[in-house]
Amino acid sequence: MDKLFKSRMDVNTARQVFLDSVQPLKGIESVLIEVADNRILASEVCSEQNVPHYKRSAMDGFAVRAEDTLSASPASPIILKLTEEEVVQNTCQRVHTGSAMPAGADAVVMLEDSRLMKGAVEITAQVHPNKHVGEIGEDVIAGDMLFEPGHQLRPGDLAVLGSIGIRDIEVYHRPLIAIIPTGEEVMPRGTLLNPGEIWETNSLMTASYVRKFGAVPRISDIVTDNYELLRQAILAGSDADMLIISGGTSVGERDLVPSVIAEIGELLVHGIAISPGKPTALGIVNQKPVLCMPGYPVAGLVALLVFGKDAIQKLGHIPKKPEIIIRLPLKYKITSRQGYQTYVRVRIVDNMVEPLMTSGAGILSSVAKADGYVVVPPNIEGYGAGTEVDVMLF
Amino acid sequence: MDKLFKSRMDVNTARQVFLDSVQPLKGIESVLIEVADNRILASEVCSEQNVPHYKRSAMDGFAVRAEDTLSASPASPIILKLTEEEVVQNTCQRVHTGSAMPAGADAVVMLEDSRLMKGAVEITAQVHPNKHVGEIGEDVIAGDMLFEPGHQLRPGDLAVLGSIGIRDIEVYHRPLIAIIPTGEEVMPRGTLLNPGEIWETNSLMTASYVRKFGAVPRISDIVTDNYELLRQAILAGSDADMLIISGGTSVGERDLVPSVIAEIGELLVHGIAISPGKPTALGIVNQKPVLCMPGYPVAGLVALLVFGKDAIQKLGHIPKKPEIIIRLPLKYKITSRQGYQTYVRVRIVDNMVEPLMTSGAGILSSVAKADGYVVVPPNIEGYGAGTEVDVMLF
Repeated sequence: MDKLFKSRMDVNTARQVFLDSVQPLKGIESVLIEVADNRILASEVCSEQNVPHYKRSAMDGFAVRAEDTLSASPASPIILKLTEEEVVQNTCQRVHTGSAMPAGADAVVMLEDSRLMKGAVEITAQVHPNKHVGEIGEDVIAGDMLFEPGHQLRPGDLAVLGSIGIRDIEVYHRPLIAIIPTGEEVMPRGTLLNPGEIWETNSLMTASYVRKFGAVPRISDIVTDNYELLRQAILAGSDADMLIISGGTSVGERDLVPSVIAEIGELLVHGIAISPGKPTALGIVNQKPVLCMPGYPVAGLVALLVFGKDAIQKLGHIPKKPEIIIRLPLKYKITSRQGYQTYVRVRIVDNMVEPLMTSGAGILSSVAKADGYVVVPPNIEGYGAGTEVDVMLF
Repeated sequence: MDKLFKSRMDVNTARQVFLDSVQPLKGIESVLIEVADNRILASEVCSEQNVPHYKRSAMDGFAVRAEDTLSASPASPIILKLTEEEVVQNTCQRVHTGSAMPAGADAVVMLEDSRLMKGAVEITAQVHPNKHVGEIGEDVIAGDMLFEPGHQLRPGDLAVLGSIGIRDIEVYHRPLIAIIPTGEEVMPRGTLLNPGEIWETNSLMTASYVRKFGAVPRISDIVTDNYELLRQAILAGSDADMLIISGGTSVGERDLVPSVIAEIGELLVHGIAISPGKPTALGIVNQKPVLCMPGYPVAGLVALLVFGKDAIQKLGHIPKKPEIIIRLPLKYKITSRQGYQTYVRVRIVDNMVEPLMTSGAGILSSVAKADGYVVVPPNIEGYGAGTEVDVMLF
């Protein structure tokens, strides 16, 4: 069908054209820190208080006046009387790590340098003023900026926020992604199938990835291959922050989605030098980015990973994380589609990379068996057996 | 305080002793595929049906009897009459990719090799029988095993399950993790603090990590440093699949958790050659693994990542994923604690690794600033500036 696509844009250009049409969301909301894991800060976080907010002992031991310990040593210990009141000359008070320093004390003698006696303590080491004492604000000073806008919150960060008394924080909205499955042959799961019909499953895969990417999926009913119905469904979906339409993107007479996009919005790209995934189309409707995924599950998956993920993350201000890449030698050669950036499904067996059947038959079973994929750039014919390749995990 | 710990077990031995006490959960449940992302299959999945369940066209084009196309070429095309009934001699029928093959047809001529005329089609290429025809069961044959027990479901797998008509699947229970914050000085978030008091935040961090690891957190009320109250809380928590207790693990007079564990269960390890995290204790109560995390947030975080994660994943049959590791040169030297496996918090600036202050002050602020950590084994004194190190991301 190549000749029926007027042109095939290369992958990087297509991705850039698409990303240029995506504006990061401006909407923000306030959420409790208890549910803020993975959210993206919309404003900087400064501490409103000192941590610690009191002078504290940094050790288990005895709070003392440093001058009282002068020249104390194991050979010539000094005896200090235990008190539960203010520490005055030649007295001391039991403290724990993190305890407030009692009034009058200016240093802490570690438990190891002491011996508890009846009503008193033998001190076997001299301490200087402020020894084992944490000053107010030693960790965080009121006004310190702890997090910049755009920071993605991790579990340890939530603890930091809780420790400075913050209960809720401003984060960017999670992008809402309208997922529209299309196709005359596509039936709701659970119905009985006639020959020529298949169950709709792309929305299920897409919704799970959308959640993984950090956004919120909204799945519409299946739309059949009817121009007017598609137009209505796509317009209705354009209240979301982005649309992902599955199916109807090729050049057959049932493939109406790109022309609908062109009519009601702008068709940026149709036909990409990517395999599988060539019929992928990219556009804008109502200023919302639209990814038209091919209906074939594997081609749809590639379109989602190559174009959908970056767009969703740009919408949501979500920082890119490095991908998990495993570098291992190929067991068999990979032949790629000349002129196409080819995504070859592979599995890893005994530290070798085995390519799985990539075209025609074996589409479902190859997804089930694949651990990940290897990307072959368009200017390379493939890789020979034994070549070390980078496997991106699914 | 080193001398107060009778011994310090090395990290790998401690982890192994702990993991040996963990039995993978046997409980299984049935969940809809719509909510099965990341779940672990408890039984193998075989297809009950053929995919495709009908003979299908693999291309957009015209279904024909192959014998009718004999010697067709662009120079000498053959004309076939269009029909919507059975394909008989010298007729053809329009088909789409995935369409059921009409009765009588045994091959498909691609759209590119045809030209539509009024009520007929000009065919410009000869096809052999079965050309561009997908046989029944070509992708999956009824009875084929698609997934093995223990497989962690990915979004594409859910689509595969939906495509073979599976609505729900048997998966292992997610481990339930009882999180018990302890400490006389630890107060509920939102209360007013006196000197010596801090807000409880370890349960928040722990719960978020527990979810990330694939389990379900259940947070109890804060328990003060009282032997009987701790005993009751730990016994009550032992209905869960695992307990994580925060605080009270050191050797001070307020550190009662290890002795409670020893009384009501078995204390496997107390004191580990890890920094921070030395006071970490590991045990069993009511046959449930118990991780006693130090109360200091950074030490607790290390204990959680080094001991908690593996135990939770073993409980839940969750396969280990490779960690994201970034290898970059150190900007400044790292000095580690001799004899301890040291976890140094670092940040990445301009492709260089900068160690953050690791002891005393800067605990909270260093967590906020850290991108990840570098592990220094106990037999190494540290790494010099310029050394390439592996950074594990938080």
